[in-house]
Formats: sequence, structure tokens, C-alpha cells
Amino acid sequence: MTDNQDAAESALKRKLRIVIFGTDTPAGRWFDLILLLCIVASVSLVLLDTVQSVNQRWGELIHGLEWFFTLVFTMEYLLRLYCSAHRWQYARSFYGVVDLLSVLPSYLALFFPGANFTLIIRVLRLFRIFRVLKLLRYLSEGNMLLRAMMQSSRKVFIFFFSVSLIIMVLGAVMYMVEGPENGFSSIPKSIYWTIVTITTVGYGDITPKTDLGQAIAALTMLIGYSIIAIPTGILTAEISQEIGRSRDLRRCSNCLKTGHEPQARFCNRCGSELAEEI
Amino acid sequence: MTDNQDAAESALKRKLRIVIFGTDTPAGRWFDLILLLCIVASVSLVLLDTVQSVNQRWGELIHGLEWFFTLVFTMEYLLRLYCSAHRWQYARSFYGVVDLLSVLPSYLALFFPGANFTLIIRVLRLFRIFRVLKLLRYLSEGNMLLRAMMQSSRKVFIFFFSVSLIIMVLGAVMYMVEGPENGFSSIPKSIYWTIVTITTVGYGDITPKTDLGQAIAALTMLIGYSIIAIPTGILTAEISQEIGRSRDLRRCSNCLKTGHEPQARFCNRCGSELAEEI
Amino acid sequence: MTDNQDAAESALKRKLRIVIFGTDTPAGRWFDLILLLCIVASVSLVLLDTVQSVNQRWGELIHGLEWFFTLVFTMEYLLRLYCSAHRWQYARSFYGVVDLLSVLPSYLALFFPGANFTLIIRVLRLFRIFRVLKLLRYLSEGNMLLRAMMQSSRKVFIFFFSVSLIIMVLGAVMYMVEGPENGFSSIPKSIYWTIVTITTVGYGDITPKTDLGQAIAALTMLIGYSIIAIPTGILTAEISQEIGRSRDLRRCSNCLKTGHEPQARFCNRCGSELAEEI
Amino acid sequence: MTDNQDAAESALKRKLRIVIFGTDTPAGRWFDLILLLCIVASVSLVLLDTVQSVNQRWGELIHGLEWFFTLVFTMEYLLRLYCSAHRWQYARSFYGVVDLLSVLPSYLALFFPGANFTLIIRVLRLFRIFRVLKLLRYLSEGNMLLRAMMQSSRKVFIFFFSVSLIIMVLGAVMYMVEGPENGFSSIPKSIYWTIVTITTVGYGDITPKTDLGQAIAALTMLIGYSIIAIPTGILTAEISQEIGRSRDLRRCSNCLKTGHEPQARFCNRCGSELAEEI
Repeated sequence: MTDNQDAAESALKRKLRIVIFGTDTPAGRWFDLILLLCIVASVSLVLLDTVQSVNQRWGELIHGLEWFFTLVFTMEYLLRLYCSAHRWQYARSFYGVVDLLSVLPSYLALFFPGANFTLIIRVLRLFRIFRVLKLLRYLSEGNMLLRAMMQSSRKVFIFFFSVSLIIMVLGAVMYMVEGPENGFSSIPKSIYWTIVTITTVGYGDITPKTDLGQAIAALTMLIGYSIIAIPTGILTAEISQEIGRSRDLRRCSNCLKTGHEPQARFCNRCGSELAEEI
Repeated sequence: MTDNQDAAESALKRKLRIVIFGTDTPAGRWFDLILLLCIVASVSLVLLDTVQSVNQRWGELIHGLEWFFTLVFTMEYLLRLYCSAHRWQYARSFYGVVDLLSVLPSYLALFFPGANFTLIIRVLRLFRIFRVLKLLRYLSEGNMLLRAMMQSSRKVFIFFFSVSLIIMVLGAVMYMVEGPENGFSSIPKSIYWTIVTITTVGYGDITPKTDLGQAIAALTMLIGYSIIAIPTGILTAEISQEIGRSRDLRRCSNCLKTGHEPQARFCNRCGSELAEEI
Repeated sequence: MTDNQDAAESALKRKLRIVIFGTDTPAGRWFDLILLLCIVASVSLVLLDTVQSVNQRWGELIHGLEWFFTLVFTMEYLLRLYCSAHRWQYARSFYGVVDLLSVLPSYLALFFPGANFTLIIRVLRLFRIFRVLKLLRYLSEGNMLLRAMMQSSRKVFIFFFSVSLIIMVLGAVMYMVEGPENGFSSIPKSIYWTIVTITTVGYGDITPKTDLGQAIAALTMLIGYSIIAIPTGILTAEISQEIGRSRDLRRCSNCLKTGHEPQARFCNRCGSELAEEI
Repeated sequence: MTDNQDAAESALKRKLRIVIFGTDTPAGRWFDLILLLCIVASVSLVLLDTVQSVNQRWGELIHGLEWFFTLVFTMEYLLRLYCSAHRWQYARSFYGVVDLLSVLPSYLALFFPGANFTLIIRVLRLFRIFRVLKLLRYLSEGNMLLRAMMQSSRKVFIFFFSVSLIIMVLGAVMYMVEGPENGFSSIPKSIYWTIVTITTVGYGDITPKTDLGQAIAALTMLIGYSIIAIPTGILTAEISQEIGRSRDLRRCSNCLKTGHEPQARFCNRCGSELAEEI
């Protein structure tokens, strides 16, 4: 192998890397879009395949298409491995493992056929769609949301800890008040009922029958209805702060004025052009 | 046709245009109000007609009134066509199509009678009420809400994308855990259950029966209960910003002070009268 | 009747007026508290009387107590009439009518006995409790809430108008998709289902059975889940503004600094005492 | 007993006090962590013991472990009593009573065996977990949440008072409209239904059957759906204020600039190091 060959391979690799891993070039964006469509299509097939009437009529076609997508994703995985600068690092990264998991089970199913196994594969395949989330990295909005959630995580943890104590106590009280004869067959089941009630879901599969039970249930609902305000309040305050902060960060390079509107293109004090929003 | 006739027609046209399309004159407001009442009355009739007991007793009267309103709306459409400066432009505009759709199906039903067809007509007729929304254009509040929603649309999209991934994964997991014997007959049905649960609707037509299923259901509810805070937080922060911005826009023309209260009529620094809120 | 008698009566009237209408003196507060307890007790009796087991066992006692409270409220009404400066004005005021309505039906029931009539009386009696709301007038918090709601009423009206259009369209679509055989027996019933779903109540008395119906139902839930953020956002922004405004109104009379914390008793710039919060 | 012995005992006591009551030393933190695990484990056992299948299979083991944890908590209680500086004060404090209540019932059950009694014990044992809440005292976030809730408590009280009036009136109206034949057997049951509906829980165990009843139910849902915005708005505004206030309190000791970001370690005006967040 000459140096020239090596250089050519390296050039091909570099080009492929820009297309496959990058999102800045038109080719890179097309690659991502096609991959996204493949993921959505293959997941839709997995979902539809579990509908009995669809499975009976189109089962053959769906399995054919599933193998087609498996081959596409296999090729994509091998290409990624081939063109990445640090192969081992990619293979062990979060997205590398997700990429492998999206193809491996289909091949494993050849050796270990079984209904349940196939189901697990189908669930795992759904994770493939998370790859699309990598696009979010480039969206400052996603980062802002994440930062606001991080900022409020300690407050939200304290909130959920207090709520889970309330849920456990209310669950135990309802088990004692209503008892197994009214569907509250154990404290865990009672806690399930309390969560159904406090989150205002209210299936109605277990409902209080006694007067005292209904009074406690009404109290539980009112608690759930009012404490929903707490995480909303925490997060709203943090997001407000984040928006204000991101605006403060946008500074006119000429007169140093901050606090420009997100769409503003020119400084409203000195008229010089503003840099893009960070 | 003489120039005089032409000018007279043009004057009539202009007057009609002001009444029919405008909202600034008393006549224009009356026209809009009467049209609004006609729309509400005709839609109410369509709704009531589907109630069997009403249909049996007042069916004749309702159909008579329906034809009356159809004629009213037809006349209105023709008048609009007649007096609009750019007829073709109006006919192809959003409101032009809505206006046509509100009368056309009634005539089509004469040629193609059939139960199902009549139903579609009734649904389409409901869209007629959207015309009233044109009034909203003049309400700065509606604009402010729309602007706040536009501003937050990217963040809300990311939120809904993440939520739909969670919904799909939870749906697939519940299908595996509970299975067709507990009502989770396919993954799409399982996803329907997940949406019913995560939005805290909780019909109770499909409920988890196994212990593990109930534990995952409880988790789903808590997720739904807590992530409801995110769009609220995003939108609240944006609306706060919009209110602050609209206040900043209101500026005393004398001393240039901004930040006046929405009801303020005089500048609270120099006492000169303020312009109306924009 | 001498002037002296007249003056004495007037003095008695004035004293009574201070006790009965006022809330500033200890006697006035005691009068209000006792009246509040009587209202709560009489309403509780009305509620309990409809429980069959309670009615059978304590019916006699409850009816006796009901007449006792009726007499108390009658006496109170006559006293109010007697001591108010402008009798006719009081009798026609909102609270005057509520006071009369809280006693009149009991006497009317003597002449027109009948089960349904008694029920209406019981409902009307519940309005008596609204008198307690007059205490709210003195709470600046209540005023602030009301002002924030007034400020946001136009935005909230636009929101509810748009939502009711969505509800009507979705109701009509679901009536066509599911039809009477699945419980959607008419468009008004279909609209009832849409409201049950979009507000995330989800009784489960009517649920979609077809695949398309369940898909539209899922969409309805997601709409309801996300648009709940809009009124919250509007009101939160207004309340934030109201709190900021009430703080701006509190101004140090010495150095004119505003923006003091609600609990602050001294100006944090010049140290002079602050007036009570307005 | 010599002075030396006394001093030694006192030294032991002081050391124990630091470990048991304190959280600043590694030993103190380990003690708290182990205690927390014991509480969680013992509560989990109580919950699982009520599941019939678990009770039949592992009942013996669970009761053995329960006695083990009872002994651990007894020892802990005696140690706390022994090493606390003011024994009587500790015994009467909130945590002292909770500590006693977590062990006492197990011993009482020896003398008064009975199914119901054991259940009460189990409920009381759940309160043991509240001890963990003492850790929250050291979290400034918890304090901030509590302060925001205190600040908004008067507004929230007015809100809940108004809501409960609406609930009672709607409950009475629904009792009259639907009546006992549709499940609204008494006004208290009707109020239970109203709470289920207004909090958007919606079990579906009682649902309106008449047209008028369904219309009022739809109104109730829309009321519940919209007034949920009010406590959220109140609390969000207060939390925003609290976050702003806590930032204002953080002041650079060199140039006195306030308003630093929570993570900021250096003043962004003069560069000197900032004190830890309060």
C-alpha cells in the first residue's frame, strides 16, 4: 500500500465522516433526513405488525421490509465504524451502542427464534429513534430547557419526595378504611389507587365505596389538584430566568448594550449589527 | 353603460364593501353581528338535528330553517363576490373558500342525497364559525397570544417530540408486560392507553391488571403529572415577556418614558396624554 | 315621640349598625363569626338531610334545627332592615336580596308543601354562604386576584372561544367516525364526550371503539393537555405584574424609594418607617 | 461515682450526640443514611406484607425482620434519650414523639393482639419516614418553597374557599337535576361527584345520565379546567419573587453588586470571590 492510496482512503474517510456524522453540509443533512425516515418507517412497521388484522394480511411484506431496514442499518453501522477517527471510542459511546442494539437483535433472532424474544427486539428497536435526539444538541432551545430543568431539579426532587410520602400515607389509610372487599386488596394496590387519584388520572377500576373513603378520596383529589401548581411554579420561574439570562448574554459589540429581543438584528441604541443569538 | 352609471355602481360597491368587509362603521358592525348570530343559529340547528327526539319532533322546521340560512349565506357570498375589489383574489383567499364551503354542500346534497353525505355537510358547516375569528385580528390580545405561541413553538416542538418518544417506548413496554389478554391487544392500542394515561384523562376502558403493569402505569402517571409543567413554564415565560414588551412599546410622546400601565391614560412622569395601547 | 326618644333610637340604631354591618369592632367581628357558624351549620344540615340513613334517624331533629336557623336568619334580616340608614337601598342591594332569599323559601314551603320545592329551597339556602364573601372585600389579596383576572379576561375569552370551536369541530367529527352504535348518539352528546376528554376528566362512560376514533381521541387529549398551558400562562403573567405593581405602589414617604418587600416595616434606604401595605 | 467517670460519660454522650443528632461529621451522615435505609426497608416490608401472596409465602420472614427493625428503632430511641442534653425536651418534641410512635405500637400489639390494631401500627410506622424530612431543613430550596407557599397561602385560601362554595352549589344542583335514580343519592355524594369532576379526576363511578345533567357536568369540567390556572399563577409569581429575592441577597462583599447567578463564584463586576449562596 502506497502513501497515495493511504491518503486517498483517508480523503474518502474524511468525506464520509462529514456526510455521516456532520450536519453542516447539504449531503450530511440529506443523510440524516433519509436515516430519520428509515427509522420512523421501521418503527411504524414494528407497531403495525402487532395489530392482528394487519399482521394476518400484510405479515409477509412487513417482515420483508423489516429485513430491508435491518440491512440498511447494518450498512450504516459498518460505515460509521469504518469512517470514524477513533473506532473503539465510537463503538463504546452512547450512540454507538444504540446503533449496534438497533441491528444486533434481528440477527440474534435467527439463532434463538421465540415469540417473546421477538417482542423484546421490537421494543429495543424503538430506541433507535433516540438517535434523532442528537439533532437537538444544535438547538439552543433544547439546551435552555435542560438547563432550566437542571436548575430546578433539587426543588423538584424535594417536591416529589414529599408527594411520595403523602401518597404512601394516604395509600395505607385507604387500605384500612376501604379494605380488600372494596378492591383495595393490599397497600401497594392502595398506593396505585392513590397515584391514579392524586395525578387526576382516575381510571375508575378501583373506587372508594364507603362514605369515609369517598371523603378521603375527595381530599386526595384536592391535594393532587393543588400541588400540581408547585412543579409548574418552580419550572416557570427557572425558564423565565433562563430566557432573561440568554437575553443578557446577547450584547452589542459596539456599545455593549444587552437585553435585545431574540429577533432583533440591529442594536436599538447604536444601530450596529448584532451577532446571531447564542 | 355611461361613466355616470359606472361611477354610481362603484359608489354602491364601495359602500357595500365598507359594510360587508369593514368593521369600523356602525353598519359594518351590525352586519358582522347579524352574520355571527346566523352562523351560531345555523350551527346550533345542525347540532340539535342529530338528537333523535328533536329530529323526530322538529325535523321539518329545522330543515326549513337550514334552507333559510343557506339562502342567507348564499346571498352574502354573492354580495361579497360582487363588491370586492379583486374578486378572484377573494374567491381564492382562506375566508373566500370557507364562505363557499359553507353554502356549496347544501346544494350538492340536492343532487347526491345520502345519509353520510349530509353528515359531512354538517361538519363542514361548522367551519363557517371560523369566519368570526377574523374579528380577532383587531384584538391586540389575540396577536400577543399568537406571538407568544410562535416564540415558544420551537421549545414546545422539542417537548412534544420527547414526549412522543416516551409514549412510544412506554406503549411497547406495556404491550409486552400486559399483553392482549388484558386489553393491550396491539402496540398502537397500547400507545392509545399510554396517551390516555400520560395526559391524565384516564378513561378506564383499558387498565393494567398485573402488578408490574400497575407499577409502570403509576410511573407513566407521575411522568404525565410532572411534564405538564414544561409547556406551561415555556408559555408563561413567553407571555410574561410579551406583556413586558407591549408595555415597553407604549411610550409617552412628550418625555419618552415607557412602561406605562395598560389602563394609564396620562404619562405618570410629565402628565401629557398617552396614545391608545397598540 | 320626643326628640330625646328619637335621638336614643338613633343611637341604638347606630350602635347596631356598627355591630351588624361593621367589622372593625370586637362586637362586629363576633357577630360576623356567629353568623358564619350559623350559616355553615344550617348548610351542613341541609346537606346531611339528603342522606337517607341520616334523614331516617335524625330527620325530626334536623327539621327542628332548620326552623331554629330560619328564625335566627329572619331576626337578622329584620335587624339589618331596621338599623340600615337607607332601608330600601339595602333591600335592593345584592346582599339584601341574598339575605331575603335565605329565609323566604322556608316560609313559602309552609303554603306550598312538596318534595321538589323543598329541594329548591335547600339549593337557594346554599347561597347564604356567599355573604361570608363580603369579608373578602377587606383582603387586598382577593382584590389583587380579581384585578389580575379582569386584566386577563379578554385574553381568556379569546382562548375559550377558540377552544369551544375546536370542541364543536372535534365533537362533530367523532359523531361521524364513531356513530350512535358506539355511544356517540348525537352531536351534543359527542360534544359532551369531547369536553370530558379535552379537560382530561375522562369518565369512561363513552369511549371510542374504532381505530380511527381512538386516534382522534388521542389527538383530542394531547390538545387538551397542551392548551391547558395557555390560561395558566396568561394568568401567571398578570398576577406577576399585579404583585410587582402593588410593590411599586408602596413608597417610602421620606425618600420616595419603591419596591419594598411586603413584610418590610422600614425603608431599606433611609430607615424611616413605612406605611402599611395597601 | 467520681468526677472523672462523670466527665468520661459526658464525653461519650457528647460524641454520641454529634453522631446521632448531627449531620456535619462523616459518622453522623453514615448514621443518618443507615437509619434512612432501615426506615425504607421496614416500611417496604409493611407494604409488602399486605399483599396476600407475599404474606402466605414470606410471612414468617417478614415478621422476623419486622421485630429486628423494631429492636433497632428501640435501641435508637433509647440512645437518643440517653445522649440528648435535655431529655424531657427531646421526648416531648415533634421528632421525639414520632420516634416513640414508631416503636411503641409493636410492643402494644403483644398485649392486645388483633387484626385491626396491627393495621393501625402499620400506618403509624409510615410516619417514621418523616424523620428523613429533618434533612430538608438544611436545603435552602426547601425553605424557599415553603416561604413561597407561606407568602401565597392567603391568596390560595381565598381561592379554595371560593372553589368549595362553587363545589357545594354545583353538588346541590346536580342532586336536584339527576337525583338518586342516576347515582346522585344525596348531596354529600353529589359533592363527591363534583370534586371528582372539577379536579378532572373523573372516575366514572357516578356519571350524569340526563341531558341537562351532562350540560352542567360539561360546565363543571370547564370551570375545573380553567380555575386550575389560578393557584399555579399565584405560586409561580411568588416563586419568581423568591428566586429574585435570594439572588438580591447575594451581594459581593467588595463592590456590593447584587443579582449574581446562583452558580457564580466570582463577582462579574470586580472579580473578587463571592460567599456561598445563602
